[in-house]
Amino acid sequence: MTDTPRGYRGDGHLVDLLARAGVARTVDEVRALVAGVLAAPPAVDPDAWLVLVGEGLPAELAEQLQALKADLADRRPAAGPDHAGRLAAVRGAMARLGLDGFVVPRADEHQGEYVPPRAQRLAWLTGFTGSAGLAVVTKDRAAMFVDGRYTLQVRHEVPETLYAYRHLVDDPLADWVAEALPAGARLGYDPWLHTVGWVEKTRAGLERAGIELVAASANPVDAVWQGQPPAPLAPVVAHDLAFAGASAVDKRAQVAAKLERDGVGAAVLTQPDSIAWLLNLRGGDVACTPLPLSFATVRDDGAVDLFIDRRKLAPGVEAHLGNQVAVRAPEEFGAALDELGRGGRKVLADPATTAAWITDRLAAAGARVARDADPCALPKACKNAVELDGTRRAHRRDGVAMARFLAWLSGAAPAGAVSELEAAERLLAFRQEGERFRDVSFETISGAGPNGAIVHYRVSPETNRRLEPGSLYLIDSGAQYLDGTTDVTRTVAIGTPTDEMRERFTLVLKGHIAVSTARFPRGTTGSQLDALARLPLWQAGLDYDHGTGHGVGSYLSVHEGPQRISKVPNTVALQEGMILSNEPGYYKTGGYGIRIENLIVVQPAEMPQAERPMLGFEVLTLVPIDRALIAPGLMTAAELDWVDAYHARVRGALSPLLDGPAGAWLAAATESLVR
Amino acid sequence: MTDTPRGYRGDGHLVDLLARAGVARTVDEVRALVAGVLAAPPAVDPDAWLVLVGEGLPAELAEQLQALKADLADRRPAAGPDHAGRLAAVRGAMARLGLDGFVVPRADEHQGEYVPPRAQRLAWLTGFTGSAGLAVVTKDRAAMFVDGRYTLQVRHEVPETLYAYRHLVDDPLADWVAEALPAGARLGYDPWLHTVGWVEKTRAGLERAGIELVAASANPVDAVWQGQPPAPLAPVVAHDLAFAGASAVDKRAQVAAKLERDGVGAAVLTQPDSIAWLLNLRGGDVACTPLPLSFATVRDDGAVDLFIDRRKLAPGVEAHLGNQVAVRAPEEFGAALDELGRGGRKVLADPATTAAWITDRLAAAGARVARDADPCALPKACKNAVELDGTRRAHRRDGVAMARFLAWLSGAAPAGAVSELEAAERLLAFRQEGERFRDVSFETISGAGPNGAIVHYRVSPETNRRLEPGSLYLIDSGAQYLDGTTDVTRTVAIGTPTDEMRERFTLVLKGHIAVSTARFPRGTTGSQLDALARLPLWQAGLDYDHGTGHGVGSYLSVHEGPQRISKVPNTVALQEGMILSNEPGYYKTGGYGIRIENLIVVQPAEMPQAERPMLGFEVLTLVPIDRALIAPGLMTAAELDWVDAYHARVRGALSPLLDGPAGAWLAAATESLVR
Repeated sequence: MTDTPRGYRGDGHLVDLLARAGVARTVDEVRALVAGVLAAPPAVDPDAWLVLVGEGLPAELAEQLQALKADLADRRPAAGPDHAGRLAAVRGAMARLGLDGFVVPRADEHQGEYVPPRAQRLAWLTGFTGSAGLAVVTKDRAAMFVDGRYTLQVRHEVPETLYAYRHLVDDPLADWVAEALPAGARLGYDPWLHTVGWVEKTRAGLERAGIELVAASANPVDAVWQGQPPAPLAPVVAHDLAFAGASAVDKRAQVAAKLERDGVGAAVLTQPDSIAWLLNLRGGDVACTPLPLSFATVRDDGAVDLFIDRRKLAPGVEAHLGNQVAVRAPEEFGAALDELGRGGRKVLADPATTAAWITDRLAAAGARVARDADPCALPKACKNAVELDGTRRAHRRDGVAMARFLAWLSGAAPAGAVSELEAAERLLAFRQEGERFRDVSFETISGAGPNGAIVHYRVSPETNRRLEPGSLYLIDSGAQYLDGTTDVTRTVAIGTPTDEMRERFTLVLKGHIAVSTARFPRGTTGSQLDALARLPLWQAGLDYDHGTGHGVGSYLSVHEGPQRISKVPNTVALQEGMILSNEPGYYKTGGYGIRIENLIVVQPAEMPQAERPMLGFEVLTLVPIDRALIAPGLMTAAELDWVDAYHARVRGALSPLLDGPAGAWLAAATESLVR
Repeated sequence: MTDTPRGYRGDGHLVDLLARAGVARTVDEVRALVAGVLAAPPAVDPDAWLVLVGEGLPAELAEQLQALKADLADRRPAAGPDHAGRLAAVRGAMARLGLDGFVVPRADEHQGEYVPPRAQRLAWLTGFTGSAGLAVVTKDRAAMFVDGRYTLQVRHEVPETLYAYRHLVDDPLADWVAEALPAGARLGYDPWLHTVGWVEKTRAGLERAGIELVAASANPVDAVWQGQPPAPLAPVVAHDLAFAGASAVDKRAQVAAKLERDGVGAAVLTQPDSIAWLLNLRGGDVACTPLPLSFATVRDDGAVDLFIDRRKLAPGVEAHLGNQVAVRAPEEFGAALDELGRGGRKVLADPATTAAWITDRLAAAGARVARDADPCALPKACKNAVELDGTRRAHRRDGVAMARFLAWLSGAAPAGAVSELEAAERLLAFRQEGERFRDVSFETISGAGPNGAIVHYRVSPETNRRLEPGSLYLIDSGAQYLDGTTDVTRTVAIGTPTDEMRERFTLVLKGHIAVSTARFPRGTTGSQLDALARLPLWQAGLDYDHGTGHGVGSYLSVHEGPQRISKVPNTVALQEGMILSNEPGYYKTGGYGIRIENLIVVQPAEMPQAERPMLGFEVLTLVPIDRALIAPGLMTAAELDWVDAYHARVRGALSPLLDGPAGAWLAAATESLVR
């Protein structure tokens, strides 16, 4: 692509260019494709999508396609009616569907963390942009349910004249609905957007008030959303065996064997990252996570039906998939579930993530639905040696970027001239220089002073703060590299910290070290380890309101299961090769936030004297921990040794790759605490 | 009762005595009553049961009743056929019921820990006396399923010529059955002896093999068991408000309010200890736990139907129960469930403990069965101030008995002359001297050397060992006092321990101290704390295969829920007033066993600087920990301080109650470790 594309010269010209290049597509088809590309986030390589039109396109055609894309991006429809108008329109559609109320969740059909523009119904309707929430609309009332993270944000984004605010967890949906609707009323929901578990729980809750929960035949939001974007179309490519470490053939055989062992005829896969792992595919349909949105079924003989818009498959992908994987149109999914269920076949569907529409359809087709965990989740979580080598290399590159960033910060910040936004941009620039960098793995949290105490803070021009002397700065960020996914948080003293800051940072660090150094027998779960991270804070009457660790994918989602370190009960044992974050924190509202996060991987512990097989963690992240914030007097000798050994390792890994000021900074930042 | 009762002088004489005393009972009635008394364990007061015949009986009648009892005890029927004969008889009964197989569990109708002689069907059939297990019998095969605790014991007790041995957890029942029975076969179970959860799981497991699990219309064991004892009849008495701290009226109101809040019309109570708590009743139908076997229902208006054999109610109990509690015959229970379920009423039944017979009957009657926790479990677990004062007093008496025992042991054991049995008997004798002592709270574990490494060891004349110099001795025991239930384990060095013994004892102690000293925010569960007890062992490659702590009742079951400290996920938060054990251990098979157990109670933590409400533990148990087994070099200063402070507290509480050698022993046993 040239830097200054000429303008779009019209459909007639495009027809000529397509014909001359031998591309058998109509202009309407190309326009629809480009609209889909625009509904996906921008890619690292802005020309990558052109392969979806054809390989090796002539320069002039490529240029006109980019010009068309730019043209369409400019012409995206105006916002349409305001929130009051949208609410009124949805109420009209609701009434036409015979519903007295309707539930609008934030989720899409995959219950995913990132939802494409097409599925951002809650944001379109209410203005709310948080990552969890739900609106309920009746003829004359409406309520917005959000959790503790968003109680402030919802007031800014969602007009209180239109919506009552409720707590997503503490205020039962049923209570509000029972007040808003009379007995006998019909509350609708879109069965594509809720799990069967949600439907059952909500139905039971509404029963007492005599309100019926009914699957709507159509989504009233979709019915009235003018200019609703199409489904995203980012190129789907094969994930190289050199990164994946196991072929899709082997993975399908592994999953099929598990299904056969469990007496399950087939499984429905609704999680795009499970499908991406199983078939060694990557895509770009949503932000931060390289996955193609799709559904699939896998049978106990290893055959897979992949339901995906064929237009987004890059050339060669079908060959990569092979003849045991049938690519089918998303529209055929329902009929395929009918086939699958016939004859009372046992079909697995994960109740935590499968849309009620799917389990309803399976049951209607006669399937015995086995509610069990996604069969890809566990093998995906246990990384193979190739994936682990990849992630170690990725972490070294990520450590270089972080060290260059922290070195820069140490020079620039004390003068008080750096802002949260600028810092995040600098870090991104350093990361982008790294080999195999594709994207950030989540939106960077760059929080200065009191903003650091907001656990899910996202910097915006409105909230942007300068990093001030005497304050703490918290940066939580990560990247997607072709060979691994990173996620790291460091808390940095800007100027001189207070004794309280140092004391509390040290308590957090003690918890972080307790997890890092824990040895535990096979069979132990992350839930069992969670308290180790909290105990030093607990003993001081402090705690933090988030989990200690989440699973991390391999060039996939930065948040994956089934393992985690959390006080929420979890029965999945930690197993060799599982990557987790280790991120205890402490947050003083209005003051500062502290979090120390490394990625760690479960490994056998070398203990010749052990009486049973023991596991432990290898630390993947290679970034110095701010020594200025450590109060050595609060630490045991073993804890001080751990910090020194970690810093020596970081220095050994990164110093060959850093010179100049960053090299000097690294040497100072990794000095021993005890010498 | 005189010490030497004269012999029974015949029914004619008894008729006269009854008539003269104005007791309107036939001799047959009295004989049936006495048979029931004999089917209950012996009581502390051997005359207590006489009130069931009448109050203030003339001495001669009382004497003849005791003589009749002695006579009946002597005449208990001979054992009947041997195990092969019994198995053959059960197979015959099975066939007559149209069954191809039958499951014989260890459980009774209440899924209780202690089962009365009448319900010891598994022991009668197979000879197995362990506390968990299950036999499956088919026409030509039979298997005995036991867990890891009983793999040795089962070989001694159950003839291998008749039964295959299988693992209760690792070997799925369905696998063995699928091998033993053809597709289409009918495997029977007694729906009174299994929970609905077991039935559903087992049915699903058998489905693949095409085997049908059917509720048997009668229990084939009962059909052929000659001389099966009757249900036990131990006197049921009111539990004094001075010990209970809350009236039954208040408790019923509390439970009713909870049912009403949850929209539940009624709850079925199948746990005798829940009923005993709710109605402030105590009894003696089973060993070690002062409870009357019974069922009950409680409605959302607080009205209770109590299904109990009226013959066992001591005079005055009906007045104590009041007119909101209807005493009904056990035979009326089914009809009462029908009434309860009528009209689609929502009826709560705890799926973990309710017999399938009950949930089946409710469902057949039209009830909507709400599967939820027993509504008495949580309020029963949270002891009130009166109960806590009582348990503190009980622990002081228990500490005196333990100190006298340990002092005696320290003198007698090093010579090598004390046996496990003698030690247990001595300890019981010391306890019996304590005020308000009623019973042991479980069978004492008295394990010398390698026997201490058997977690659920029960000493018998066959296994009885001497306490040898250079070995460890583990004693785990407890008592039922009217004002509280105790449970304590101490491990004692006999002579000089090895360095390894001291090192491992110290690791166990570090875990014990970690739990004792933990502070944690409200909402924390015992599952979250479990790892604190294990971490010091884990770091050395060691662990123990049992939970860290169980709930303890107030003059009730020594094992109660819903709280526990365990790696098994548990969603019940620890709450003020909950009593738990804290008992990490270490077991070297063939060598020695270590366990250190105190009872602890959840209390608000006094932390003025805390940012959130914090809880911690008060230690109830007052018994020195063997200083000879502590390696101070492995402990932190804080841990040493904890031991010293604990010992100072024990000394302060017990020394006023001990003099002579026991007093001197206490002074030495509680000396500071650091001075």
